[in-house]
Amino acid sequence: MLRWFEQNGPEGDVVISSRVRLARNLKDYNFSLKLDTPDAHKMIGEAAQKLRVLPEFKDFHEYHFENLEEVQREAMKERHVISPFLLSQSVAGGFVSSNEDLSIMLNEEDHIRIQAYRAGMDMERAYEAADHIDDCIGAVLPYAYDTQYGYLTTCPSNVGTGMRVSYMCHLPALAWNNKIQGIAAEIGRFGLVMHSVYSDGNKSAGDIYQISNQITLGVTEKELIENITNIVQQIVTQERILRNRLKEKQKISVLDGIYRSYGILKYARKVSLKDGLVLLSQLRLGLAEGLVKTPDERDYAIYQLMIGIQPGNLEMLASQELTEEETDVMRAQFIRENLPSIE
Amino acid sequence: MLRWFEQNGPEGDVVISSRVRLARNLKDYNFSLKLDTPDAHKMIGEAAQKLRVLPEFKDFHEYHFENLEEVQREAMKERHVISPFLLSQSVAGGFVSSNEDLSIMLNEEDHIRIQAYRAGMDMERAYEAADHIDDCIGAVLPYAYDTQYGYLTTCPSNVGTGMRVSYMCHLPALAWNNKIQGIAAEIGRFGLVMHSVYSDGNKSAGDIYQISNQITLGVTEKELIENITNIVQQIVTQERILRNRLKEKQKISVLDGIYRSYGILKYARKVSLKDGLVLLSQLRLGLAEGLVKTPDERDYAIYQLMIGIQPGNLEMLASQELTEEETDVMRAQFIRENLPSIE
Repeated sequence: MLRWFEQNGPEGDVVISSRVRLARNLKDYNFSLKLDTPDAHKMIGEAAQKLRVLPEFKDFHEYHFENLEEVQREAMKERHVISPFLLSQSVAGGFVSSNEDLSIMLNEEDHIRIQAYRAGMDMERAYEAADHIDDCIGAVLPYAYDTQYGYLTTCPSNVGTGMRVSYMCHLPALAWNNKIQGIAAEIGRFGLVMHSVYSDGNKSAGDIYQISNQITLGVTEKELIENITNIVQQIVTQERILRNRLKEKQKISVLDGIYRSYGILKYARKVSLKDGLVLLSQLRLGLAEGLVKTPDERDYAIYQLMIGIQPGNLEMLASQELTEEETDVMRAQFIRENLPSIE
Repeated sequence: MLRWFEQNGPEGDVVISSRVRLARNLKDYNFSLKLDTPDAHKMIGEAAQKLRVLPEFKDFHEYHFENLEEVQREAMKERHVISPFLLSQSVAGGFVSSNEDLSIMLNEEDHIRIQAYRAGMDMERAYEAADHIDDCIGAVLPYAYDTQYGYLTTCPSNVGTGMRVSYMCHLPALAWNNKIQGIAAEIGRFGLVMHSVYSDGNKSAGDIYQISNQITLGVTEKELIENITNIVQQIVTQERILRNRLKEKQKISVLDGIYRSYGILKYARKVSLKDGLVLLSQLRLGLAEGLVKTPDERDYAIYQLMIGIQPGNLEMLASQELTEEETDVMRAQFIRENLPSIE
């Protein structure tokens, strides 16, 4: 069964993924920031014990940080299974579904973080999955809930629904036309925030952007999803208009850029992370727009390569620590071995 | 039968070709610069009539500028069959051997210019060929010759032997180490001159350099050839030392540069002349040093591609005038179709 980042979902030319994250806390424990190590172990232990027996958790993988090597945790973060915040915790654990589209983190900023991913623009199904698992967990673990404020969370910005909804989008045409900053400013007025997923200084490498809600209080989950989805749909439209303009007005230059990127990816002997993301962004655009094709028209999701070339994954594959140059060499090899062939 | 630029000759890792050029004039005509158009036609007519019946000229192709389209003349210049000077003449003609290693130009700066090419470092055979055809021509056409000064020529710099000897060398390692200017200054002290074959502003594109003698008077042909050959042999040694240093100290970067160049050449959809020369220089280095290999270890001479991507040749192939962008697109296509495969 393919993982979400190995598939192209609805509106997959632009939208890589839809993600719902719910923040929950257990009422019988101090919130994570005030939870001492023994209590953190106790909280995780109790939660894990109650959850692992649930039928919904049957095929889930249970992990505890004390049993994971640093590189394994790093690679989980790169695959978006766990959050950067969880990675910074010394005591943590969780569950992850076999296809990695559902993740329950324990002792994140909140006691429980539920996260559901779907490929492409498919927030309803992501929400359904998160909502269902939330119900299951809430039935066996007593949540900190206030009738006036809703779910109580460590950070006030999460109080209420405790829900953060994010679309991850590939926006090369908007980026090349210097439209990202303007869009970021504009969507701020609707309570949304945009950030580059892979940053290189203050520029994006790979043109991948995440758009999320900031407000969690005073609106229903449904309203939240409708609001962000409408706006992301407009961004998708803008991106497509600019892509079409590029294809019409600079067809040969665009094609040349895509093919050169492919040629470099296919033959390079060392590739930096930034370089790899930039080159893969071009190839993703080419495949999404049908400018280059895989021989059997197989639907290849380039984002899996963007995850694959991250340093943690490469170090996992190498089964040893790598210097920066060794990582670049390993990255080039990984790309060569996993790049789809094109006609 | 392969043309000289389709083969790798002796010392072919560095030396692309050896060329001998002899300047000769007919004593019964004004020198070319003072030759009016009717007399130029008469001179060419008389010379061609006497030469085309010689057994040595049996398989030669005879051409006259009035029968050639501009693009054909341009492509002949690009293949080094005729000189840039001949191209600037309105009345001109000549003979060229079927493999293009021997060329007799009529009404160049001098009435007759004999030119012999050989692949690699093989000046003796180039000289033998030029010398033999010179004897044949001299037997049927009366040369302007002075017992004190030797062969008389339009430009005093050619008086004496009338011989210019040139090695064309590929010097990427010397170029990357900024050693070209120093070498050019040094060989000047030995009466030699060095120039970039493909210039891009005051930089070389493709790292191809021609080294020639300036002095033609007061030395024998044999001495001339010995002198330049010794010095070029030293340059070859320097180039090899620096290549080995690159391979030892920056192996991965060098390999990466070569493979990336190959990937771009193989996939690009438009390639400028400069870009093409730079990329092919990398590939030539890779093949010469065994850093990349053709599957059957076939000895592929990259210089033929450097000639092939010149605008005249591309326009000939297209059978029509091309805009700059069309030329770049045609160049990319030509490269894709003619690039050797590598492992």
